[in-house]
Amino acid sequence: VTCPVRVADAGDADVVGLLLHEFNREFGVPTPGPGVLAERLRALLGGEGVLALLAGEPPVGVALLTFRPSVWFPGPAATLEELYVVPARRRAGIGGRLLDRVLVEATARGAGTLEIPVDEGDADARRFYEAHGLFHVDPQSGDGRLLYGRDLEP
Amino acid sequence: VTCPVRVADAGDADVVGLLLHEFNREFGVPTPGPGVLAERLRALLGGEGVLALLAGEPPVGVALLTFRPSVWFPGPAATLEELYVVPARRRAGIGGRLLDRVLVEATARGAGTLEIPVDEGDADARRFYEAHGLFHVDPQSGDGRLLYGRDLEP
Repeated sequence: VTCPVRVADAGDADVVGLLLHEFNREFGVPTPGPGVLAERLRALLGGEGVLALLAGEPPVGVALLTFRPSVWFPGPAATLEELYVVPARRRAGIGGRLLDRVLVEATARGAGTLEIPVDEGDADARRFYEAHGLFHVDPQSGDGRLLYGRDLEP
Repeated sequence: VTCPVRVADAGDADVVGLLLHEFNREFGVPTPGPGVLAERLRALLGGEGVLALLAGEPPVGVALLTFRPSVWFPGPAATLEELYVVPARRRAGIGGRLLDRVLVEATARGAGTLEIPVDEGDADARRFYEAHGLFHVDPQSGDGRLLYGRDLEP
């Protein structure tokens, strides 16, 4: 079974929003709902700051990349915000294929670095990224990188 | 001694670049040099994706914020990329004043979250952020957040 990966455009906002919504529901994380996500994605997909990848037709996996300016590289810094494959299609290499394409697309946009927020207790995600050459220990300093922060109230 | 904090504009690119360069030099992190940093900042300051704050006149501290799109909030996600006070002016509350203003400016731009990459071994930075109500443990999941990733080759 082939599972082609392609770049999503604004016309894919509904399916991207639905997959991201299902991702959060599966892991008990709040979501504004597939409709709100789709509306935001319609405005963002195809622009400079967001790139989504879809695997399969109909899509069974999604990767969401964002880009922000950086002063440390000639190009932007990329963040892999989300990477999700529906439960029935896991353990078949689809996540790895999405991640490979993430690296290709981030590089093609000139990004100097790819960052991925990962929960400390998410052993599956950590194993997955480490198997693909992505680590949370800075090779320069030998130091682990943590993500601090908090949500802001309007 | 007062130490006012203000938003930098493109005309401040040189001093912002110099402070960021000194920051990396102090901690042994590679830097492209103050000239390259200033050139990049001239193109970025005043735009949507980057906001720098300067403390003191002449400036003795800097904060560098970036913004990227988010689908989880109505507004963008903010990253505090750098926060630096020159050694001679530390332990006088200047960093705290910069951080307070970072939260104000990120909120004013509608950001739904502020994220801060911090080295695991940087006890001073961790203590500083925690004293200001910023943590690397997600209040929802109770799980620490790690930052995975790697630099990309053009």
